[in-house]
Amino acid sequence: MQFISATTSSAVLERHFTLDGITGVLWSPASGAVDSPLLLAGHSGGMHKKAPGLVATALHVVASYGFTVAAIDAPGHGDRPRDRRDRQWAEAIHRARTAGESIAPIVMDYTLSLAQRSVPEWQRTLDALQSLPDIGRDAPVGCAGVTTGAVIGVMLAAAEPRIVAASFGGGFVDGNVIRAARQVTVPVDYQIPWDDADFDRESAMALFDAFGSKEKTLHAYPGRYHPIPEHVRDEAARFLARHLGRTARLAPLESDGGGAG
Amino acid sequence: MQFISATTSSAVLERHFTLDGITGVLWSPASGAVDSPLLLAGHSGGMHKKAPGLVATALHVVASYGFTVAAIDAPGHGDRPRDRRDRQWAEAIHRARTAGESIAPIVMDYTLSLAQRSVPEWQRTLDALQSLPDIGRDAPVGCAGVTTGAVIGVMLAAAEPRIVAASFGGGFVDGNVIRAARQVTVPVDYQIPWDDADFDRESAMALFDAFGSKEKTLHAYPGRYHPIPEHVRDEAARFLARHLGRTARLAPLESDGGGAG
Repeated sequence: MQFISATTSSAVLERHFTLDGITGVLWSPASGAVDSPLLLAGHSGGMHKKAPGLVATALHVVASYGFTVAAIDAPGHGDRPRDRRDRQWAEAIHRARTAGESIAPIVMDYTLSLAQRSVPEWQRTLDALQSLPDIGRDAPVGCAGVTTGAVIGVMLAAAEPRIVAASFGGGFVDGNVIRAARQVTVPVDYQIPWDDADFDRESAMALFDAFGSKEKTLHAYPGRYHPIPEHVRDEAARFLARHLGRTARLAPLESDGGGAG
Repeated sequence: MQFISATTSSAVLERHFTLDGITGVLWSPASGAVDSPLLLAGHSGGMHKKAPGLVATALHVVASYGFTVAAIDAPGHGDRPRDRRDRQWAEAIHRARTAGESIAPIVMDYTLSLAQRSVPEWQRTLDALQSLPDIGRDAPVGCAGVTTGAVIGVMLAAAEPRIVAASFGGGFVDGNVIRAARQVTVPVDYQIPWDDADFDRESAMALFDAFGSKEKTLHAYPGRYHPIPEHVRDEAARFLARHLGRTARLAPLESDGGGAG
């Protein structure tokens, strides 16, 4: 793992890295992370490691809960070359959208292919992160992802025993995802948009049902995927903090019964 | 409204009251409530104003958010006489349970009857509470309820413009409830158990769908109605605090990166 840049802003250290062709970014408290839980954050389909929603979540959990957050570009995304097969999938999705057809079957095939390549990449990234002195092997590890990142995250959580809690949002769900979800037994928080034309409620219910976790919570919010309401993002962060061993660091107390307003 | 007892424990003042045959209880910060939001809390079917889950929620929002909480016994519940019709319903529910039959149709009829009687009682109770000097007409008002209390709460929120936010849990849902839910436009938090034999997920989805609210959140949690997981109770309290204008009063900050454990 090579760090290729390091910048600090608003008390958050941001470092870009590469690892055997994987391009990634790491956010951590600029004050130095002690007992910092590690969150592996997956971007949504067609996006990249610094997708706006992912960055918003990352900065929130670093600033509010002292997390360290790692994000990597999925194969063919962000700073990584897109091979012929990936280009064909992207073109097929574009054609289906233009024709007003469902993108679901194409996205499901594409996501499965991405997951097969991404899961081992995440595992190698995790190996490398755990060998860093400021992270180490004792930091509790969680994963999070939205849409394509959720599906990859389910596959990762099913395969990787170092993951101890997971937060997912939406995603196209097929039998492969359902089978993987049954292997996930760590606490899961699952957020779904209630009114997104690209999102099928029934399959979301089936996925929530399939998680093998004793503790799992489904959050549905009105509207489309984006913007994710602030309180939904906040609840997901609280969930991760609760299960990765950090309590909230909030602003100081208000005084009791403190006056008007 | 006559207060018939007042006790203080753990910084919470508990006062029992009667109002034209309605028996109720009021919890408020013992320090005196300034700008205290008012929550009307409905108990579940067969329970009473001091049902354990209701009391747990009430004490939590009083202690953590400075709320004032009122609960009243539904007609034929708690300290109130049960008339012949109520007794017949209760016996029919008991018979259905014993025979292993669905209690849903009986509970739905019974709950509709209770709601028709309860909504005006809640409105009279709210009138009386707002005439108290320590509550007044400026306190934002929310309502909450589980099962039968949820159905009554939906009817109340549909009928009563003073309600500005509502938190409901479960409940048997029929066309009457769906029609009332369409009239509810204030923010709603709806919690459902995922694996309760007495609870039908499909009708819960239909109810969540029906709420006319721009802001609404569905929370599903594994297992049966009880016990409600602590984090679900906490999220519902946060939701009410956010919409009734109180921010969290939490324990002091942990120090940054504060040592092992």
